[in-house]
Amino acid sequence: MAFQSDNSAAPCPEVLAAIAAAAPATLAGYDGDALSASLAQAFGALFDHPCEVLPVVTGTAANALALAAMVPPYGAVVCHQEAHIEVDECGAPGFYTGGASLMLVPGAGGKLTPDAINTATAGHRGDVHQVQIRALSLTQATEAGTVYTPAELAALGDLARARGWRVHLDGARFANAVAHLGCHPADISWRAGVDILSFGTIKNGGLSAEAIVVFAPDLVEDLRFRRKRAGQMPSKGRFQAAQLLAMIGDDVWLRNARAANAAAQRLAAAAGDRLLHPVEANEVFVKLRPGEAEVLRAAGLGFYDWGAVGSGEARFVASWDTAERAIAAFEKVLAGS
Amino acid sequence: MAFQSDNSAAPCPEVLAAIAAAAPATLAGYDGDALSASLAQAFGALFDHPCEVLPVVTGTAANALALAAMVPPYGAVVCHQEAHIEVDECGAPGFYTGGASLMLVPGAGGKLTPDAINTATAGHRGDVHQVQIRALSLTQATEAGTVYTPAELAALGDLARARGWRVHLDGARFANAVAHLGCHPADISWRAGVDILSFGTIKNGGLSAEAIVVFAPDLVEDLRFRRKRAGQMPSKGRFQAAQLLAMIGDDVWLRNARAANAAAQRLAAAAGDRLLHPVEANEVFVKLRPGEAEVLRAAGLGFYDWGAVGSGEARFVASWDTAERAIAAFEKVLAGS
Amino acid sequence: MAFQSDNSAAPCPEVLAAIAAAAPATLAGYDGDALSASLAQAFGALFDHPCEVLPVVTGTAANALALAAMVPPYGAVVCHQEAHIEVDECGAPGFYTGGASLMLVPGAGGKLTPDAINTATAGHRGDVHQVQIRALSLTQATEAGTVYTPAELAALGDLARARGWRVHLDGARFANAVAHLGCHPADISWRAGVDILSFGTIKNGGLSAEAIVVFAPDLVEDLRFRRKRAGQMPSKGRFQAAQLLAMIGDDVWLRNARAANAAAQRLAAAAGDRLLHPVEANEVFVKLRPGEAEVLRAAGLGFYDWGAVGSGEARFVASWDTAERAIAAFEKVLAGS
Amino acid sequence: MAFQSDNSAAPCPEVLAAIAAAAPATLAGYDGDALSASLAQAFGALFDHPCEVLPVVTGTAANALALAAMVPPYGAVVCHQEAHIEVDECGAPGFYTGGASLMLVPGAGGKLTPDAINTATAGHRGDVHQVQIRALSLTQATEAGTVYTPAELAALGDLARARGWRVHLDGARFANAVAHLGCHPADISWRAGVDILSFGTIKNGGLSAEAIVVFAPDLVEDLRFRRKRAGQMPSKGRFQAAQLLAMIGDDVWLRNARAANAAAQRLAAAAGDRLLHPVEANEVFVKLRPGEAEVLRAAGLGFYDWGAVGSGEARFVASWDTAERAIAAFEKVLAGS
Repeated sequence: MAFQSDNSAAPCPEVLAAIAAAAPATLAGYDGDALSASLAQAFGALFDHPCEVLPVVTGTAANALALAAMVPPYGAVVCHQEAHIEVDECGAPGFYTGGASLMLVPGAGGKLTPDAINTATAGHRGDVHQVQIRALSLTQATEAGTVYTPAELAALGDLARARGWRVHLDGARFANAVAHLGCHPADISWRAGVDILSFGTIKNGGLSAEAIVVFAPDLVEDLRFRRKRAGQMPSKGRFQAAQLLAMIGDDVWLRNARAANAAAQRLAAAAGDRLLHPVEANEVFVKLRPGEAEVLRAAGLGFYDWGAVGSGEARFVASWDTAERAIAAFEKVLAGS
Repeated sequence: MAFQSDNSAAPCPEVLAAIAAAAPATLAGYDGDALSASLAQAFGALFDHPCEVLPVVTGTAANALALAAMVPPYGAVVCHQEAHIEVDECGAPGFYTGGASLMLVPGAGGKLTPDAINTATAGHRGDVHQVQIRALSLTQATEAGTVYTPAELAALGDLARARGWRVHLDGARFANAVAHLGCHPADISWRAGVDILSFGTIKNGGLSAEAIVVFAPDLVEDLRFRRKRAGQMPSKGRFQAAQLLAMIGDDVWLRNARAANAAAQRLAAAAGDRLLHPVEANEVFVKLRPGEAEVLRAAGLGFYDWGAVGSGEARFVASWDTAERAIAAFEKVLAGS
Repeated sequence: MAFQSDNSAAPCPEVLAAIAAAAPATLAGYDGDALSASLAQAFGALFDHPCEVLPVVTGTAANALALAAMVPPYGAVVCHQEAHIEVDECGAPGFYTGGASLMLVPGAGGKLTPDAINTATAGHRGDVHQVQIRALSLTQATEAGTVYTPAELAALGDLARARGWRVHLDGARFANAVAHLGCHPADISWRAGVDILSFGTIKNGGLSAEAIVVFAPDLVEDLRFRRKRAGQMPSKGRFQAAQLLAMIGDDVWLRNARAANAAAQRLAAAAGDRLLHPVEANEVFVKLRPGEAEVLRAAGLGFYDWGAVGSGEARFVASWDTAERAIAAFEKVLAGS
Repeated sequence: MAFQSDNSAAPCPEVLAAIAAAAPATLAGYDGDALSASLAQAFGALFDHPCEVLPVVTGTAANALALAAMVPPYGAVVCHQEAHIEVDECGAPGFYTGGASLMLVPGAGGKLTPDAINTATAGHRGDVHQVQIRALSLTQATEAGTVYTPAELAALGDLARARGWRVHLDGARFANAVAHLGCHPADISWRAGVDILSFGTIKNGGLSAEAIVVFAPDLVEDLRFRRKRAGQMPSKGRFQAAQLLAMIGDDVWLRNARAANAAAQRLAAAAGDRLLHPVEANEVFVKLRPGEAEVLRAAGLGFYDWGAVGSGEARFVASWDTAERAIAAFEKVLAGS
């Protein structure tokens, strides 16, 4: 009954089957196999737009490579102050970009707005004494479990375009956002101005494959070299491609995401006024009442404390395979308080 | 009938089974699971020496991270001029080290010798105008399919120690070397002065896990951060650990390597005086006679031309699962010439 | 009548004379000359503490090299959100450190306090998912023209020491601080826990030499290589050493700083309640009344607008050679409003 | 009587006078002053071609910045195996480029040829597994004291152009080459395909200013930011500009170079068959006869041993101000042997 992270979940059967199916020897290593060769077309069909796809093994690598393709070493990336790239990646963007900066912007519910960005960057100059803002990195679903609407994203994309910035979307939970919105994946990616999407599967029932989906053709070639140089190009690349294809085939990615979102809605309903943010994806942030954390843990539920020590805040993350009994246990404890 | 690379081979059943077995959800992501937690002890037992183990997804990452832990950005690494870190990793050492240099040394059969190193570094100074040599990187088995004896390695380790250099061993085919020598793995690692070993499994029937095995305790902490920052720490780390444990359990790694080496011996016997180097691992380098390359390919054998264009040189790599019929086809063509 | 920056000032006669005196040919380039060789002793006497001195050509280089010697690429540096290293150096710390982060902390009057640092870093963890704080960078005199007392600095140094951080002091206007405090230079450097001081001269009547003064012996060797590699080691190093020696000889540095501070006090008195910060060094920040900026400029005074557009805020920087007539013009305009 | 290096020489009077003349306060720091603003036009007139000029303080910085503007972090630069960027800059190119490689090519007399480059790069591939060659760096005059003819340089420039490489010219002794050839400076720079020239003055009677002269407009903007970020943009930039203008005004640079070259010719004549390379600039490489080194040093001459220990090889560098008595002493010793 683990709510610590969607990283703790099992891989879904389709992904495991795809790995087994890709096992036989092939004539070509790296990306020379047939599965790898079909990625661009498969994702192009999914997104209804030409794109290139570079599999990597972690979201950290996907994000950092994307940013490295967008900003020079003296560049800067605007992002939310709680963005994964700032908080949880041990400085990977600084490493991959050769020392570029993140420019942190606050925002309620994990969301950036044009106003917040304009305010934060108002005093920033274009002269040689300052780092140069060249990209905007957004997270969808956000770190707070909320989801940008297509219109919200498009407005941010417009702002970026107007200022000459590229747009990166950290989509570690992109599937949850699409499932929540019921929109076409294009609506919250290239149609909203996204140049590169970190398309996550690992938190969504995948095993070890994330996809860098590049909608901006001019950014592709550079990425190929950076990916190899970062040790992110597996020699048996077919296993990465197989996982990605299994996820987007037969809508597995959406089915998994819907299941996780639905589980989160159950938790949200149980949490009631304990909720810190609207629950729009698979993450539930709550302010527990005194004593509840202990009771939940005694009941066998795993989760992380969040926020300041002693605040009572906690995070529960649902997964594609969250067990009914785990939800029920959560409901029971919170109902009993 | 693919002799292009051991990267083309299938993963062995033990590895696939281990992945499947690791699938169920766990309480902890990253390296917090039980499999990951057991790596140090398992490898410590294998090597008969305390060590730390950091799984990564490519040999390139293993090598580059190891070097980054050993040399400062203004440092230099002595290596063979045909080393994988120089020829096949798109400059990964430069990336991970923050710009350190490789100092290339020639050597017959892919091997370095103390004499060759002393000659190449004789004019190098310790003053601030030059990069500072701080590490020696060796490859075992070598890029030419040969194998250093324990004594040869120990002599190189002694030289490094005497000059204050750390020692890295690129062991993408370490298993093939141990299988060839019939030695204890310690004899060609820490007993020979190796500080960090890139322990490969992917070329040896693995799927996506390589291990950085650190014998020098002072290098461990730095590596943990560098690995995370490089996007080389999977959130579902248990699948990496599972693969590594499957490989070293029940001597799978040696069984696979022996099979590959034996296949290579068959090719070597058939190649006779076409051989360019002694065949001591699973790679066979030959100078084909005119027309043979075409006949081999017409017979369905895949392999890479090697060396200068038109030289007739070619590389054949055997794997743990090289088919008898592939060997027989090779033998038949070469016998018929 | 330029109040734009102390960078606009003339070099003082002592520095120009020292350059001329160092002109004759020497037997040794780089730092091999007698002047360079005497730097450590001269600064050691000035600070009453053993130290090493590495001349560089800009404050940016001094700061960035100092930080690179203190933090690993996955490290972080705590600094004020308006620190020069964040705002005015085009990301130099990211470049020199190999991608480390600055962790920005707010503080009134350009000053950090232990409380502000503790608050800002309270949620920061030591695990591999986050950058590792390894240094505190302070600025003395601050970017707001204020000066830390020795006790304030010592408290910050204690905090850093307790948390295992090194301490860097950006002393572009260190002389102004010493002149203001009337203290021994040791009181606001090594005695307060400073490991490396960027000792500025260029804003204080110098021409092109800044000194990295290293009080922590373990940081010296690394710095020597980084400095050379950064192209910060002039082949005719004697001219850098000559400038530094001229500045600290005969108390030129303090005489110049006292003159600049005194000029700033004149401006401060004239500014009265327009002052935004206490004037403790040579910078005067004011909120001008409507129309005053235009009148000042019409009177031939040069200065920069500061803060938000339309705020009326402005910065006036006094120099060692600020002309009496410039001060008088300032006084006249502000008195007349 | 120092023949160690042209770095040991005095700055020429014109440069010292220009520094003194630039001393008065100005309204603008950094490159905002009138002298800095006139650099592009002055060098444009000198080279008979539009260009941008960025002053830096060392040749190392000029070279490394130029290369960083030309190659990506996964790139490579072809250069002579004895090039200053490889041998004497502590890995600065690796630092500034973010980890790019130097690809070393041998060549007699310090010169590269199209044949040597083609041979060395024949096996290099354009795939993602290898670093990408994107620039050719040449040195004029060479490290061996020889000078490329305009035709030799143009052939190398043509080769680079045909392969899509940019061309950098390390002109630490560019003046000596122009003086030797009697050509227009354009003939061995932009007309030969050079994109960026490191125009040296410090070895030629200058003090602390080198110029990055950019003939390729697309490389300029990136360089401005990289220069600032490297701490190579002095706040009192007028002193850098003043030095450069003094050197190219009234042909000071050529007059100084001619004097140094003439002194070297005197040494060359005295050396006779001891010469290791043709003397075409201001460096004289000799193989001394047994005992001569000791006699020369006893006579008060300073110089560096060169090549392998015990080889008897030595380097003598003449300067614009080499004293007649130093030449005479050299002649006397060698005549007496």
